[in-house]
Amino acid sequence: MGPEALQFFIWSVAAAGFGIAIAAVGCGLAQAMGLKAAVEGIARNPESSGKVTVAMLIGLAMIESLCIYTLVIGLILIYANPAAEPITRLLG
Amino acid sequence: MGPEALQFFIWSVAAAGFGIAIAAVGCGLAQAMGLKAAVEGIARNPESSGKVTVAMLIGLAMIESLCIYTLVIGLILIYANPAAEPITRLLG
Amino acid sequence: MGPEALQFFIWSVAAAGFGIAIAAVGCGLAQAMGLKAAVEGIARNPESSGKVTVAMLIGLAMIESLCIYTLVIGLILIYANPAAEPITRLLG
Amino acid sequence: MGPEALQFFIWSVAAAGFGIAIAAVGCGLAQAMGLKAAVEGIARNPESSGKVTVAMLIGLAMIESLCIYTLVIGLILIYANPAAEPITRLLG
Amino acid sequence: MGPEALQFFIWSVAAAGFGIAIAAVGCGLAQAMGLKAAVEGIARNPESSGKVTVAMLIGLAMIESLCIYTLVIGLILIYANPAAEPITRLLG
Amino acid sequence: MGPEALQFFIWSVAAAGFGIAIAAVGCGLAQAMGLKAAVEGIARNPESSGKVTVAMLIGLAMIESLCIYTLVIGLILIYANPAAEPITRLLG
Amino acid sequence: MGPEALQFFIWSVAAAGFGIAIAAVGCGLAQAMGLKAAVEGIARNPESSGKVTVAMLIGLAMIESLCIYTLVIGLILIYANPAAEPITRLLG
Amino acid sequence: MGPEALQFFIWSVAAAGFGIAIAAVGCGLAQAMGLKAAVEGIARNPESSGKVTVAMLIGLAMIESLCIYTLVIGLILIYANPAAEPITRLLG
Amino acid sequence: MGPEALQFFIWSVAAAGFGIAIAAVGCGLAQAMGLKAAVEGIARNPESSGKVTVAMLIGLAMIESLCIYTLVIGLILIYANPAAEPITRLLG
Amino acid sequence: MGPEALQFFIWSVAAAGFGIAIAAVGCGLAQAMGLKAAVEGIARNPESSGKVTVAMLIGLAMIESLCIYTLVIGLILIYANPAAEPITRLLG
Amino acid sequence: MGPEALQFFIWSVAAAGFGIAIAAVGCGLAQAMGLKAAVEGIARNPESSGKVTVAMLIGLAMIESLCIYTLVIGLILIYANPAAEPITRLLG
Amino acid sequence: MGPEALQFFIWSVAAAGFGIAIAAVGCGLAQAMGLKAAVEGIARNPESSGKVTVAMLIGLAMIESLCIYTLVIGLILIYANPAAEPITRLLG
Amino acid sequence: MGPEALQFFIWSVAAAGFGIAIAAVGCGLAQAMGLKAAVEGIARNPESSGKVTVAMLIGLAMIESLCIYTLVIGLILIYANPAAEPITRLLG
Amino acid sequence: MGPEALQFFIWSVAAAGFGIAIAAVGCGLAQAMGLKAAVEGIARNPESSGKVTVAMLIGLAMIESLCIYTLVIGLILIYANPAAEPITRLLG
Repeated sequence: MGPEALQFFIWSVAAAGFGIAIAAVGCGLAQAMGLKAAVEGIARNPESSGKVTVAMLIGLAMIESLCIYTLVIGLILIYANPAAEPITRLLG
Repeated sequence: MGPEALQFFIWSVAAAGFGIAIAAVGCGLAQAMGLKAAVEGIARNPESSGKVTVAMLIGLAMIESLCIYTLVIGLILIYANPAAEPITRLLG
Repeated sequence: MGPEALQFFIWSVAAAGFGIAIAAVGCGLAQAMGLKAAVEGIARNPESSGKVTVAMLIGLAMIESLCIYTLVIGLILIYANPAAEPITRLLG
Repeated sequence: MGPEALQFFIWSVAAAGFGIAIAAVGCGLAQAMGLKAAVEGIARNPESSGKVTVAMLIGLAMIESLCIYTLVIGLILIYANPAAEPITRLLG
Repeated sequence: MGPEALQFFIWSVAAAGFGIAIAAVGCGLAQAMGLKAAVEGIARNPESSGKVTVAMLIGLAMIESLCIYTLVIGLILIYANPAAEPITRLLG
Repeated sequence: MGPEALQFFIWSVAAAGFGIAIAAVGCGLAQAMGLKAAVEGIARNPESSGKVTVAMLIGLAMIESLCIYTLVIGLILIYANPAAEPITRLLG
Repeated sequence: MGPEALQFFIWSVAAAGFGIAIAAVGCGLAQAMGLKAAVEGIARNPESSGKVTVAMLIGLAMIESLCIYTLVIGLILIYANPAAEPITRLLG
Repeated sequence: MGPEALQFFIWSVAAAGFGIAIAAVGCGLAQAMGLKAAVEGIARNPESSGKVTVAMLIGLAMIESLCIYTLVIGLILIYANPAAEPITRLLG
Repeated sequence: MGPEALQFFIWSVAAAGFGIAIAAVGCGLAQAMGLKAAVEGIARNPESSGKVTVAMLIGLAMIESLCIYTLVIGLILIYANPAAEPITRLLG
Repeated sequence: MGPEALQFFIWSVAAAGFGIAIAAVGCGLAQAMGLKAAVEGIARNPESSGKVTVAMLIGLAMIESLCIYTLVIGLILIYANPAAEPITRLLG
Repeated sequence: MGPEALQFFIWSVAAAGFGIAIAAVGCGLAQAMGLKAAVEGIARNPESSGKVTVAMLIGLAMIESLCIYTLVIGLILIYANPAAEPITRLLG
Repeated sequence: MGPEALQFFIWSVAAAGFGIAIAAVGCGLAQAMGLKAAVEGIARNPESSGKVTVAMLIGLAMIESLCIYTLVIGLILIYANPAAEPITRLLG
Repeated sequence: MGPEALQFFIWSVAAAGFGIAIAAVGCGLAQAMGLKAAVEGIARNPESSGKVTVAMLIGLAMIESLCIYTLVIGLILIYANPAAEPITRLLG
Repeated sequence: MGPEALQFFIWSVAAAGFGIAIAAVGCGLAQAMGLKAAVEGIARNPESSGKVTVAMLIGLAMIESLCIYTLVIGLILIYANPAAEPITRLLG
């Protein structure tokens, strides 16, 4: 059962590596949309920059949180998957 | 039946890792759309920032909930799938 | 027939994990469209915020319901599929 | 013929789980388009909110019906497929 | 010829389950386009709501009919395919 | 030659089930474009509703005809394919 | 050579069934574009409805002809392919 | 070499059936773009309808010619491919 | 080496049939863009129709030439490929 | 090594046939963009037609050159590939 | 178990190499959106350039962080994966 | 090792033939964007045609250079790949 | 284990070659967005060109950095992967 | 291990040939965006052509650099890959 056990680690690597990449794309573009709106707003109406910055930071933080969920799942898959221990033992 | 049992854990890993990534992309972009509208609104009309922020937070919270459903399913697949126990026993 | 029985659980996992992710993407973007319109509307015309919020909540709730149908199907596949019992017995 | 019989249940699971997810994406975005138009309309012209809400609810209900057709087919595939009975017997 | 006979039912399930889902996506978005136009029209010109609602209902009904064709084909595939009878007999 | 004969019926099922679904998506969106234009036109200029409705119905009927061609081909594949008879005999 | 002969009929079915569906999507959307323009034009300028309707009908007829070419090819593949006769004899 | 000879006819069928469908989609949408522009132009400026119709017909004819090239290639593949004769003899 | 020789003719068929279809889609849409601009231009400024028609015809002819290159390559593949002769001899 | 040698000619055919088709799509659309701009420009400002036509022809010629590079590579692959000679000898 | 162990390193390489590339695409486009808005804002209103630059830098830094998470995961996969050590030993 | 050596030439053919086609699509569309802008600019402001033409030619030349890099790589793969010589000897 | 060891180098090549290409596409388009905004800004308001150029250079540098991360990973995969040494030894 | 060694060279060819093609597409379109903005700017405001040309050249050069990174990696894969030497020796 060794080869299949290795498959398990291979897919953990793929899910962690590509998962975070996909999430980075999405969340990056998402943060950019908020950033774009904020920057445009400040450029048009510099006096609103305080309130705009606050709203922007709330939004960026919530989007960042989504990417961090993915990072957490990725790190769990590499370091803390409960199924990893019995499978590692199969490697002999 | 060991190799196939390992396949089960592999797919759990993949579904958890890629699922949360896909959801993060979608929900991130979704939150960004709300955030963008809110930031633009505040920049144009700073006096409406109270009501706008409330509506934005309701919306961001509901979108966040969708991503959290996915996170919950992902964690169930890793830690609490009822089918996992009899299958783990097959690993010997 | 054990390996194929495991395939059954593997696909249940995949359908639940990816299904909710796909639905989260779609419904998240959908809620975002409603949210965006509402936030823009409130920012332009703060006095309409009561009626706008009511309409927005009706819409968000109906979209949320679609995602919850998917969650329900996903949980049925994990916990309450009538075909799961005879198949589990095949695992021996 | 057991393994192929299991394939039958696997595809039922996939069709139900992914089908509802795909439909949720489409119908969610569809409802969002109606919701967006309604919310924008109310924000611009609050006095039309009664007629707008009626039209919106008719439309959302018809779109919801499409998603429910998919849910019905999905539940038929899990609980009431006429071909399922003779196939279950093949599992022995 | 049993395994291939099962394949027949598997594809019937897939065609019914995914077909209705695909149709729901398309027809949902289609109805949404009509709904959006109608709602926007009513919000701008509430006095035209009678004529607009009539035209909208004609259109939504015709689009609904397309989705129902798909539902009918799907139900034919599950319950009334003339080729199903001789194939079921092959299951023994 | 039995298994391949079954393949023939499987592809007939797939072509009928997915074909009508694909056509429904396209024709639904097409009808929606016409419907949208008509509804917008009526809302802007209610006095033109007679002529607009006539043109809309001509167009919707021609688009509906395309979907019905697909339905006809689908029903031919299920009920009236000239190649089906000699192939059914191969099932024994 | 029987199984491969069956493959021939399977692909004829697929090409006919999916071909007409694909063409219906494209031509449906195409007719919709013309219909949309015509309806908008009539709504804006009802007095031009005669000339607009004539031009629209010419265009819809030419687009319909493209879909009918596909229908003709599809029916040729089912009923009048010169290669079908010697291949049918191979089934015997 | 019989099975491969059949493959030849299968691909001819597929290339003819799908080729014309793909071309119909593209040319249909293309004709629609020209039609749309012409109809809009006539609706805005009915007096230009003579010149507009002439230009439109030239364009539609050239686009139709592209689709007819595909139809010609398709019919050549079914009825007049020089490689078909020696291959048909291989079925013998 | 007969079966592989047949593969050669199969791919020639596919490249000719699908190649011209793909080119027809692209060139059709391309001609449509030019046609659309010309028709719009004539409708707005009928007096420029001479110069516009000349420019349009130059452009449509150049785009038509691209599609004809593809047709030429397709006909070369069917009738005049230098590699076809030695390969045909392999069919015996 | 005969079958693989045939593969070489098959891929040459595919690369030539599909390559020119893909290039025709891209360059056709590209020429259309230039053509569209030129036609629009002439229609708006007929007096600029000399300079516009010159610029358009330079651009169309450069885009045509890209498609001709592809045609040249395609013809090299059919008629003048240095690797073709030793491989043809392998056909025996 | 050597070949599968090598598979593990192969997928680590792929996940690191393609992951960072995908993330670079997404985050690059994201930074570009922010940059574009900032540059446009400064060009329109040069006096706001201080505040705009600050907001832009916050946003670019947060987007850069997403790409760096991916870089970190990629470097972990190459240099610090806890599963790598026992697997390397399998290479003998 | 002959068959694999042929694979090497097959892939060289594919990379050269499709690579140039892909590059032609991209660079053609790119040149078209520049051409379009230049033509529009000249039509609006004929007096700027000298400066516009210079800038356009610089840009088209730089884009052409990208396509020529691809052409060079393609010709290297056909005529000057250092790995080709030892591999050709394997055919011997 | 030699063949699999070669697979390792093959994937390193693919990840380096395609990774940098993908990143170049994304970062190129990203830099273009910033460049476009800057050029438009300078053309409209030449006096702001100093500040605009500074902001543009900051942004282009940050986007360039993303592409360089990918280049670095690619070069690591070719020249400095810690797993390469023991695997090279497997080639014997 | 010869066949796999050839695979290594095949993938080097593919990565070099397709990689540069992909990068050419992306960078070409990117340069086109900058070029378009510059040309439009010069046409509108010919007096700004000096500053605009400088900014455009900086941007085009940075985008060109991305494509050249890809070209460099491609040439390294063909001429200077450190892994190529020991693998060439495996060809015997």
